[in-house]
Amino acid sequence: MRIEKDCVGEMEVPDEALYGIHALRAAGNFPITKEKLHPLLVQSYIEIKKAAAQVNADAQTLDRQKATAIIDACDKLLHGNDQSAFIVPAIQGGAGTSTNMNTNEVIANLAMRLHPDVKIHPNDDVNQSQSTNDTYPTAGKMAMLKLLSPLQAAVKQLVTTFTDLSNQYEQTIKVGRTQLQDAVPTTYGKSFHAYATLFNRDFRRISTTVSELKVISLGGTAIGTGINASPYYQSHIADAVNAASGLNLTIDADLIDAIQNSDHFVTFSGVLKTLALDLSKVSNDLRLLSSGPKAGLNELELPRRQAGSSIMPDKINPVIPEVVNQVAFEVAGFDTTVSMAAEAGQLELNAFEPIMFKSIFTAEEHLTRAIHTLIDNCLKDIKVNVQQCAQDVNNSAVTATVLSPKIGYERATQIIKQALAENRSVKEVALSEHVLPAAEIEHLFSPAVLTHEAE
Amino acid sequence: MRIEKDCVGEMEVPDEALYGIHALRAAGNFPITKEKLHPLLVQSYIEIKKAAAQVNADAQTLDRQKATAIIDACDKLLHGNDQSAFIVPAIQGGAGTSTNMNTNEVIANLAMRLHPDVKIHPNDDVNQSQSTNDTYPTAGKMAMLKLLSPLQAAVKQLVTTFTDLSNQYEQTIKVGRTQLQDAVPTTYGKSFHAYATLFNRDFRRISTTVSELKVISLGGTAIGTGINASPYYQSHIADAVNAASGLNLTIDADLIDAIQNSDHFVTFSGVLKTLALDLSKVSNDLRLLSSGPKAGLNELELPRRQAGSSIMPDKINPVIPEVVNQVAFEVAGFDTTVSMAAEAGQLELNAFEPIMFKSIFTAEEHLTRAIHTLIDNCLKDIKVNVQQCAQDVNNSAVTATVLSPKIGYERATQIIKQALAENRSVKEVALSEHVLPAAEIEHLFSPAVLTHEAE
Amino acid sequence: MRIEKDCVGEMEVPDEALYGIHALRAAGNFPITKEKLHPLLVQSYIEIKKAAAQVNADAQTLDRQKATAIIDACDKLLHGNDQSAFIVPAIQGGAGTSTNMNTNEVIANLAMRLHPDVKIHPNDDVNQSQSTNDTYPTAGKMAMLKLLSPLQAAVKQLVTTFTDLSNQYEQTIKVGRTQLQDAVPTTYGKSFHAYATLFNRDFRRISTTVSELKVISLGGTAIGTGINASPYYQSHIADAVNAASGLNLTIDADLIDAIQNSDHFVTFSGVLKTLALDLSKVSNDLRLLSSGPKAGLNELELPRRQAGSSIMPDKINPVIPEVVNQVAFEVAGFDTTVSMAAEAGQLELNAFEPIMFKSIFTAEEHLTRAIHTLIDNCLKDIKVNVQQCAQDVNNSAVTATVLSPKIGYERATQIIKQALAENRSVKEVALSEHVLPAAEIEHLFSPAVLTHEAE
Amino acid sequence: MRIEKDCVGEMEVPDEALYGIHALRAAGNFPITKEKLHPLLVQSYIEIKKAAAQVNADAQTLDRQKATAIIDACDKLLHGNDQSAFIVPAIQGGAGTSTNMNTNEVIANLAMRLHPDVKIHPNDDVNQSQSTNDTYPTAGKMAMLKLLSPLQAAVKQLVTTFTDLSNQYEQTIKVGRTQLQDAVPTTYGKSFHAYATLFNRDFRRISTTVSELKVISLGGTAIGTGINASPYYQSHIADAVNAASGLNLTIDADLIDAIQNSDHFVTFSGVLKTLALDLSKVSNDLRLLSSGPKAGLNELELPRRQAGSSIMPDKINPVIPEVVNQVAFEVAGFDTTVSMAAEAGQLELNAFEPIMFKSIFTAEEHLTRAIHTLIDNCLKDIKVNVQQCAQDVNNSAVTATVLSPKIGYERATQIIKQALAENRSVKEVALSEHVLPAAEIEHLFSPAVLTHEAE
Repeated sequence: MRIEKDCVGEMEVPDEALYGIHALRAAGNFPITKEKLHPLLVQSYIEIKKAAAQVNADAQTLDRQKATAIIDACDKLLHGNDQSAFIVPAIQGGAGTSTNMNTNEVIANLAMRLHPDVKIHPNDDVNQSQSTNDTYPTAGKMAMLKLLSPLQAAVKQLVTTFTDLSNQYEQTIKVGRTQLQDAVPTTYGKSFHAYATLFNRDFRRISTTVSELKVISLGGTAIGTGINASPYYQSHIADAVNAASGLNLTIDADLIDAIQNSDHFVTFSGVLKTLALDLSKVSNDLRLLSSGPKAGLNELELPRRQAGSSIMPDKINPVIPEVVNQVAFEVAGFDTTVSMAAEAGQLELNAFEPIMFKSIFTAEEHLTRAIHTLIDNCLKDIKVNVQQCAQDVNNSAVTATVLSPKIGYERATQIIKQALAENRSVKEVALSEHVLPAAEIEHLFSPAVLTHEAE
Repeated sequence: MRIEKDCVGEMEVPDEALYGIHALRAAGNFPITKEKLHPLLVQSYIEIKKAAAQVNADAQTLDRQKATAIIDACDKLLHGNDQSAFIVPAIQGGAGTSTNMNTNEVIANLAMRLHPDVKIHPNDDVNQSQSTNDTYPTAGKMAMLKLLSPLQAAVKQLVTTFTDLSNQYEQTIKVGRTQLQDAVPTTYGKSFHAYATLFNRDFRRISTTVSELKVISLGGTAIGTGINASPYYQSHIADAVNAASGLNLTIDADLIDAIQNSDHFVTFSGVLKTLALDLSKVSNDLRLLSSGPKAGLNELELPRRQAGSSIMPDKINPVIPEVVNQVAFEVAGFDTTVSMAAEAGQLELNAFEPIMFKSIFTAEEHLTRAIHTLIDNCLKDIKVNVQQCAQDVNNSAVTATVLSPKIGYERATQIIKQALAENRSVKEVALSEHVLPAAEIEHLFSPAVLTHEAE
Repeated sequence: MRIEKDCVGEMEVPDEALYGIHALRAAGNFPITKEKLHPLLVQSYIEIKKAAAQVNADAQTLDRQKATAIIDACDKLLHGNDQSAFIVPAIQGGAGTSTNMNTNEVIANLAMRLHPDVKIHPNDDVNQSQSTNDTYPTAGKMAMLKLLSPLQAAVKQLVTTFTDLSNQYEQTIKVGRTQLQDAVPTTYGKSFHAYATLFNRDFRRISTTVSELKVISLGGTAIGTGINASPYYQSHIADAVNAASGLNLTIDADLIDAIQNSDHFVTFSGVLKTLALDLSKVSNDLRLLSSGPKAGLNELELPRRQAGSSIMPDKINPVIPEVVNQVAFEVAGFDTTVSMAAEAGQLELNAFEPIMFKSIFTAEEHLTRAIHTLIDNCLKDIKVNVQQCAQDVNNSAVTATVLSPKIGYERATQIIKQALAENRSVKEVALSEHVLPAAEIEHLFSPAVLTHEAE
Repeated sequence: MRIEKDCVGEMEVPDEALYGIHALRAAGNFPITKEKLHPLLVQSYIEIKKAAAQVNADAQTLDRQKATAIIDACDKLLHGNDQSAFIVPAIQGGAGTSTNMNTNEVIANLAMRLHPDVKIHPNDDVNQSQSTNDTYPTAGKMAMLKLLSPLQAAVKQLVTTFTDLSNQYEQTIKVGRTQLQDAVPTTYGKSFHAYATLFNRDFRRISTTVSELKVISLGGTAIGTGINASPYYQSHIADAVNAASGLNLTIDADLIDAIQNSDHFVTFSGVLKTLALDLSKVSNDLRLLSSGPKAGLNELELPRRQAGSSIMPDKINPVIPEVVNQVAFEVAGFDTTVSMAAEAGQLELNAFEPIMFKSIFTAEEHLTRAIHTLIDNCLKDIKVNVQQCAQDVNNSAVTATVLSPKIGYERATQIIKQALAENRSVKEVALSEHVLPAAEIEHLFSPAVLTHEAE
């Protein structure tokens, strides 16, 4: 055991540990969850530290030898896969300070192992020109951006999947339903296309929001005044972080605002919630349209993924949409959490970013995976029961809507009432009642006219 | 115009106004909503003022003549119907002070009109032994209790309505559906009974919560220490308020806690939300079961309340359950508001009770009215399509579940698959496959056994 | 009384009523709230009806005489101020059909009063080429847009107000606070500027979202297939509505999607919630910074708007920020309501737009008014207690941060500990300990360097 | 690899695996989270299976040898610690069927390993008389109850801790603050007592709710009709589960209701949210009262748990209350999730219990741990800065409230204004103005009278 010291006092740290006293105290203080820091948060933090060392060296505020040692340590951590030295939990008090200090300590200790002749101080050297308050939200945004690419790809693939289905079932006429009641007909081509349009809009919305996440607060240090950061550092750190991370970040014009406000996260969470609710609505539709097989709508046949009941033989359930629904409810919950945490910011800082980050990271990951299982395990093998669809259209009295412009809403109402009373189709009644010339009736009741593909 | 003065300065008040400078300032400060104070909040506040005057006179801290004048004014306000002097808006800053002062002013001015020889001060006399901080939450709870009685009655009536329906359709066999897929049969008797049980539980839950609302903070004055309230007042005010209001309130044992914490309102809001979500679930069921008429489940026929479409003739929609759903979503929103407002309390007071009160009052009223329209305009004339129900049971393959204990889950699965493939009923296949003696099969597939009414 | 008839049956309608049977049934079916339709929703609906009559006449599907009568009626309604014929309540089932039918009826009846020789049918003529399902969301978006202009103006004015304050207090040094603990100094200039930046971002966010609201679904009729709408109507209706309303709307490319999905409202509600939470955070700051006057931070002096207590003399409370907080909590609640309502959409329609509209309209209005009272009754007369601010900076030990880059984090920690123990300022200790040349220490502790305005 | 078969088809299962085809399919279908089933959910499920085997054997519907093998397997699983065979993820579609089937498979396979001569079928034997739909919610409630005991103990300990602090600081007078403005004095004894009262109420509320969780649905099987469960099983299963689990459960009187409704979980989640918000309010107070040390309230000194800043030396932050706040926001989010999931139940089942369970389990655990860190790492070493408190009371002008009943609200207002203007204490001004005899003034301004401990 080695003894380390901080402003609180002394503490024993295992000799081999790369982390130090700050991380160790935090691990004891926050025993809420066993979940550790998100690997992409750690990765992003190390990229910042590497970039800072480079810029500080160039600014001649950090000894070049120290900088090299720090950079080497960062590179080793970035290329390795070992997160075991990052011991602070995902849910933590302290506005992220423990995360920052854990990172500073690991890098300092590793740097000194790699360069035994160089002395590196976690605060004075690794943390130079930085504060938790500008690095932590920056690392958080970087991780969100990294998690966003796979989500965007998943949404795009969802759009493609529905577009393909739309093409496949372009001609399949079906009953429309408004308020769950029989309405005028449409086609599965149009239905699937509408889903594609919806998720394409989500894709665009996410892509627009990205811009909010690309504006960072490095150089602001403790509260945005930039105390202890050199002008050189402030004007070069963004490029260095971009080089290290491959991201395309810019520095906020008002760093005081950037450090104290969390509205970016509320907005981003809101956009994720919108996507989640859209997924839930479509999952509800899929479950409803595949209800039955005998006492339900029975229009869609979802792929049989697993036995649905421990007691009812051969029952198959819409388990994939069901899991998507649940992810949606989870993400809506995260939005509540993010909203309350953002509102709770006070004066120069919001101390509650750790729970916002955990919520948003999880939302991004779960949404990505939910979309993939929806595509792979449900949509790509979905089948439309074309016969059932056609039969329902045939039975529907609402097709009489097409008569309204010709014979009036009230006369059309009578035709429907008569058809239902006599258990005949509205077309039959229209023909037998001679409400219009037979040819015109035949024309109006053709699928193309009913679905308004033709006049 | 008369000139009134407070610690801020002077202000003109219309000569005829019963309210005074405090109310007038508030009306200018809070132009958020045109909605005024809830009449039952005003009524409850006046009951408190009346009781306080009585007790203060008995305690000999208030001149008996003044007390009489105040009581007369309160009685006149309680028996009249004129709320026009209560000008402060429902959404207000100031933790309810404006509501209290508006009341003090109206009572003082009216008392002096009724007794021109007596001089009444709104603070020193009408507000004696009181603070906004103990009277406002008390008046709020009193109003909630008054709004709760009609809600309880409505829920009880809902239980009765579903119980009646349960009796009416006791024998009507129907397909059960789990995860929207055909499941083993049940009866509408059981289904409606389950709804009755659910709302009976809501009734009990509400009734339990009432006890939290009956504990009040009068005598605590500004922060619960009871400064400026006499021991006599503190030990007699509850009885006096109960006499004035007909409620059965008791004083909290820890007034410091009682004045600063709003958890009662969170709990109560949570119980209202539970009721709301239950109403929404049942409304969803009603809409689903009445879907069709041709391309839906078509099991229930809801009464035709209004034309459902401006374009589709004779379309009828489940408009009553739909409005119930919307009230449920509204109440869930109120719960978010109440939760955030409660969490925002600080130190010796929560300043955000006005929005909690408005939210909870509205929740109680809208739920009450939603239940009444559900009963009166939907449930009492609902009809079950008995024929459709029977036919669905007949078509269902899941009835084969009843075979499992006799022939095993896997053999039962094969029977179902064969039945579906050959488009025959499972009972037919079971008979032709001789999986059991014919008599036993007949017995197992009888409605009573299928719904487990008999073995 | 006159007798009217619909598909449900007959009903008596008052002779003088402009509304008809459909509106009357709805008023009976939905007794949830006394609140009627928002006037701007009604106005927008009439603008749509007027535009539709024009286009239908041009398309030769509507008799020109009828069109003229309808347009005259619309103009009269638009220029008058009488909403009394619009009797359906704001919270309603039926997906807006009652709102549409109430409008159709009023226009038809008024048109026939203005042109007694023309016969106008509410559905066949006034509603021609339309459905509730395409007109209702369109009217809703139009009303939202109309309510947005004053909100945008209010936010802009808020930005200006904070910018002015920022200029006024540019040089006023103050203690920064992170996690409520003393941090490095800043200025009120920077603090107010950060608020200006924050709300400027909200302004931009709102302005971006506007584009989602400008895409409408007219021409889609019942479910987006456009049944009963002529191609001429579909391609000309947007221009006509823009002419009538002064808005700049375009038709959605996928009308099936446009009619069934409500994600626009979720996104818009999310943006309003973000603004609300930002207002709440700043209000929290204002309340905190003005706490005291003796046992609080006492940095800000908010204008004295009203007496703060019925029992504590001369107490003044931050009533304006408090009412803003409450509006924020209310808007967060509306977001829950909108989210649940949007998720509940099914298949070709979302039936729950009425509660979404009510929630969003109210959010827009309350936010607008909350911002105005914040500006007018609080911010424009706010004063900074410059002396208190300076004294706090003087007392603060955290200014020692400026020493860190020169003497190291650990040595700086010792200086602070010594200063606190000896109850001296850190600057004094730094000087007496000769940690740096005296001139350098003087330089580092100058306000400009402490707030990083100079190096 | 061995080949297993279900109604979907065949699949390879690792030879050594205790789980089977059903679990394996689920693991592939639901790749949302790596988090597995909660160990207490698994434990509870095994207790149910053990009890069911006993009762089925007694009912003579299950071979006694098979029952023994199943019970042996259950006992081995209950006493071991190996969860590796439970491979289905915590977030899953299918209403819990995968959890049930995973359990059935593991028990069946283990039973056959322990008793190689006995043939056990996962469905026919292990699942006999059961369905997922009655066992899964039962196991969920059992796990919630098991997690509740430590939470109740933690809340109780919190009450004790605050009670101890209340006793310790019984005489410490302090300024009260309402709306963050100086109010009449109180003591830290009263303040800490109020917190004790608050959490004692939470304790009682939780204990009341427990009763809802103790009512279970075993014997209802698929939809509550009890199909395939013998009367003997139905009347004996509760006792057997109680014997296995040590819990005290009873069977619901209406099993149809019990299986389809999730309101129990909403109510329970609501009670947990109330506790969370109370913890957040108190944490906010702790952070506020310990603000400073120089530019804040500086009344409380929280124990120094870790260095608070990577850049500002010797800064100490209220990290423990901060982590409690974040858990509170998280739990509020879970409540949103539970509410939406509960509302989404349809007809005879709610398919979304997996996400409700995960949310509630986590809420219980995080709240328990948050309370423990609050007690251990913050409250038990908290110190009140008695001198600061006394000085603030001395400076406060609001103590003049005590004069009001004697000299009137308006005269007291003048005294305060004069005191503030002349920068003197109100007591001094009252004495020099001779508003009352000097002795009476001295009496009124004594701490005991100010805090209303004496008259």
